This record gives sequence, C-alpha cells and structure tokens, in this order.
Amino acid sequence: MVTFVDIKDAHERIKPFIHRTPVLTNRSLNGLTNANLYFKCENFQKAGSFKIRGATNAVMLLKDQDINRGIVTASSGNHGAALAKAVSRRRGSTKVVMPENTPQIKVKNVLRNGGDIIWCEATQKSRDEILQKVQNETGAILIHPYNDEKIIAGQGTLAKELLEDYPKLDMIVSPVSGGGLLAGTISSAKVMNPKICIYGAEPQEADDTYRSIFTGEIQSNKTTDTICDGLRAQIGSITFPIIKDKVDEVITVSEEEIIVAMRMIWERLKIIVEPSCSITLAAIIKRSDLFEDKNVGLIMSGGNVDLSKLPW
Amino acid sequence: MVTFVDIKDAHERIKPFIHRTPVLTNRSLNGLTNANLYFKCENFQKAGSFKIRGATNAVMLLKDQDINRGIVTASSGNHGAALAKAVSRRRGSTKVVMPENTPQIKVKNVLRNGGDIIWCEATQKSRDEILQKVQNETGAILIHPYNDEKIIAGQGTLAKELLEDYPKLDMIVSPVSGGGLLAGTISSAKVMNPKICIYGAEPQEADDTYRSIFTGEIQSNKTTDTICDGLRAQIGSITFPIIKDKVDEVITVSEEEIIVAMRMIWERLKIIVEPSCSITLAAIIKRSDLFEDKNVGLIMSGGNVDLSKLPW
Repeated sequence: MVTFVDIKDAHERIKPFIHRTPVLTNRSLNGLTNANLYFKCENFQKAGSFKIRGATNAVMLLKDQDINRGIVTASSGNHGAALAKAVSRRRGSTKVVMPENTPQIKVKNVLRNGGDIIWCEATQKSRDEILQKVQNETGAILIHPYNDEKIIAGQGTLAKELLEDYPKLDMIVSPVSGGGLLAGTISSAKVMNPKICIYGAEPQEADDTYRSIFTGEIQSNKTTDTICDGLRAQIGSITFPIIKDKVDEVITVSEEEIIVAMRMIWERLKIIVEPSCSITLAAIIKRSDLFEDKNVGLIMSGGNVDLSKLPW
Repeated sequence: MVTFVDIKDAHERIKPFIHRTPVLTNRSLNGLTNANLYFKCENFQKAGSFKIRGATNAVMLLKDQDINRGIVTASSGNHGAALAKAVSRRRGSTKVVMPENTPQIKVKNVLRNGGDIIWCEATQKSRDEILQKVQNETGAILIHPYNDEKIIAGQGTLAKELLEDYPKLDMIVSPVSGGGLLAGTISSAKVMNPKICIYGAEPQEADDTYRSIFTGEIQSNKTTDTICDGLRAQIGSITFPIIKDKVDEVITVSEEEIIVAMRMIWERLKIIVEPSCSITLAAIIKRSDLFEDKNVGLIMSGGNVDLSKLPW
C-alpha cells in the first residue's frame, strides 16, 4: 500500500537531488491528435530518466550499515544508473545486473554514475538467477527496480509535479513495464484528482500487463522483442494489484506505431526521448477517440538513446 | 546602422508571435569545458529556428500594398519557413529560392508554413540569379535573409532575451553565415553590456567571414562543403561592417569537431539541434583557453535536422 502521504514525504526527501522537469506543449501535435498534450520531460532528469526519483527515495531510507553491505539491482539501464548515482552520493557501491542487449549509452551511463555491471542473458529467468547469485555471494542489499513500495512512492512524485503544474489534466498516459511508474502515477494522481483517467501504454511485443489485467492474474511476457528496451520487464507482485485495481486501460501498440510516434516527437518537439516513452503518443494516436478534446499528460520517461542505432 | 532602440522596438513588435525560448544548462558539459555554459534554445522557437524573429519584424513593417505584390527570398530553409509563416499571417504569398541540396525537413517546413519553393543550384551565383529573375518577373518584394537592417534588428532580440535572463554572461558565441544573427547579437549585447565579448563560430569549409575580417574586405566562400547547411551563405554588405567593427574573434572549426560537439549536445542535453549551431560548442572546446571559468551564452539557432541523415 503506497499512500499519498508516502509520496509527499518522498518528494520532500528527494527534492534537493532531482530536477523539477519542464512540461512542453506543441501546437502541431495538438492539431494532429485533436487533444491538448502536456509532455512531462523526464528525459531532462538527472541521469537521463525518472528512475532517479524512486532510487533516491529508496537509498535515502537505507541505514548506513545497509549501504556498507553494498547495493545490487537488476536493470535494463536507467534504474541502474540512477541507483548508482544515489548510492555513490552515500559513498556506497552498486552492482547492476544488466541484460546483454542493453544499448551502449545505458551501459556507459551506469559506469559514469559509478555502478559495476554484471551481465546476464536477455531473459527474466537469467536476470533473476544472476541477481540471486550476487545477493547470496556478496550479502548486498537488493533495491528492486520497481517491485518495492519506496520505489513506487518515489516514481509517484512525477505525476504529483505534473498535476501541481497542470491541475486541469483529464488524463495521464504512462508507459508500463514492471509497473513502478504506472503504480506511482496512479497512487498520486487519483488522490489529487479522483476523476482523472490513467492509461498505461505497452508494446504488443511485451504485453504482460495487458494480458495480466485481462485474465486477472500475473502473466509472463511471451516475447520481449521490442525496441522499447525499458519496457521488457515483467509486471511485479506489488505493482500489479495497484494497477489492476485502478488503471483505466492498458493500450498496446505495435513497433511501427512506436517508431512513427518517436520520430514525430523528435521532429516537432526537438527533444530526444526513448522509444519506451514515445509509446505514450503512439497510444494516443491509436485510440484518438478516447483522447479527443482532452487535456492529456504524457510521461516522457527518459532520453537515453543510442544515437548510432536509431530505428528509422 | 541598427540601434538598440530598433531592437527594443522590434522586440515589442514581434513578442506576441514568437516564443521566449528557454535557456538550458548542463553540469557535465560545464565540467568538460571548465566553463559555465548557457544554451539559448531557439531550436524550440516557432518554425524551428531564430529566423522567425527577423522575418516577423520585417513583414510586420511592410505596407499592405507590398504584401499584395507577393514576397520573395532566397534561403537554405529556416528563413524561408519563418518568412512564409510571417507572410501567411498577413494573408500574403511567399516564394522561396532554395538550393537543391537543402535537407528534406527544411523543404517540408517551408511548404508546411505556406511557402512556394523555386529551386536553384547550390551556389551563391545561381541563388542570386534566380532570385533576381523571380523579382523581375513577378514584381515581388525581396526580404533578404540577413542583409537587411530590419532582419538584423529582429535577430538582435535573441541576445536581448538572453542577457535579460542571464545578465552576468561574460561572452556569447553565435554561429555566423550571412551575418544577420551575429550582427544582431553584437548590436544588442554590446549595448546592454559593453564589456561582453562576442565570438562568431564558422565552418573551416565556409570561412568567408573569417577571411573577410583577416583581409578587411568581403571575401567569397571558396567552398561550402560543410554539414552546416545553415552556414553556407556569403557575409553581407550590411552585416559585415557591424561584425568587422565589433566582433571579438571569429573561430573556425573542422567538420569533425562540429560532429563531435553536435553529438555531445544531443547525448547530454537531450535536445535536437542543427550542426549549424553545434558549431558554437565546437568553438568553445577548440579554444578552451578563451572560455575557461567564464559564463558563456551559446546560441542554439535551430533544430531542423533531417533525422534520416545524421552525420554519425
């Protein structure tokens, strides 16, 4: 259970260590979607993504003796870099279990922020096994990338800022992977405005959350063959109940739809964002009936893109 | 002669039709350059570049009967799009003489803003000849992209905003091509702060301004073989005297230095900017002795980049 008080406390705790990121608007994309779009730009956040919010909150709540044991996590990159940054500030060390297919820029970002990388295969099974092995061998403390209430509370500070700045939003669209961001968004936004609708956007190629909601039980990803390298994780046991209970809908989109939306954001807004958050615009374009004439917040979750491997 | 009063008047005139663009900072680029860098982000400006400032100023000063004759210009793209936007607002029509090697995104930008394109070869001679021909045949009014005091006054509003927001800047680095932006920057910044240093940044492959200052007379470009598609024009008879008189130095950089700097800006600042303004960071890196420990404004003049043809 993550309360709005947890999120407010987290916000006060982490404020000195994060940016209050800007919100951008764009007349031509509004015209294209027949909606008023508000892009919350966490691509400009410290370490290049929203992940610094949850990671900083979790690390600040650790005791010194826990920091001294060392910290470990599994991450496709952004959480690893953010965690390493937060742990380095407390003079601790961080081991990050990363899949082999992680983009180079995210690898470098972990290293630049002081993390040590331990490679795993690009499967949930390998990720879990190697993480467990490192924990057993080193006694390091796990800070999970999403299945942790302190992480969820930290991520919830993003929607809190967005609604403080734009209280008239009718809807927010968040990417969903492990569910930390979406669960945090729900936990803050639906308290601040009980009428607001919250949508998840998920790749068809990694649609475990969509299918989990459909069946009512946590389902595994059948494939993770998506360019959204930040959206390949498995929905969590703590995040899923929050999402299942309160999300208005999870919208799935194809790889092609994601690429088209990503290019639109780059060309019109002139900002560098990951495919993993361009998916929010793709969802709005796909389900234009839902969003017409509405004020819609889109979470631009990160901007760590390998510029040598663009999808067009 | 462009006075600061001209620039203030231009600013009041155009304010309702332009964005006051944000200024971004970045700790890692500050660390890299040992300077405090302030990026004035005209890539977020209407029509994607600073050119809307001068074009709007010039078009607003036209009489209705001039608008009715039609407007013509020669432009590598950004001035053309900005001019078409400003003229369309007054319900006039705009013909833009564009070189054949203009990036597709700039071609589309002119069309989207209501301009008609007339192609020329990628030489100053062809540009001038075809422009003259269109003027003779149609009687259209020329609004030159830079060699015009109303354009220079409009471009001068950029540095005015920058110094209003950051009065403690020691220096500003501006790209230089035809010289409208650099002359405007000099004309406002050196009045607002007589001690400020203003540098031009120019590609070695199109270094007419550098050589013109060296010799004291306007020189032609020997080549325009640069990825900076916005910096291939020839310094003008009105802009050159202003620049020659007051610029502190024109720094030339190689194509490779420009590409490295462009990638740094994209990767660290997460914004899309043209090679034509990435050159300002390249100049700072090249001449780090000049900029060490200084507060330096960099003019990010535009963000219209063809994403299918990136230089890395």
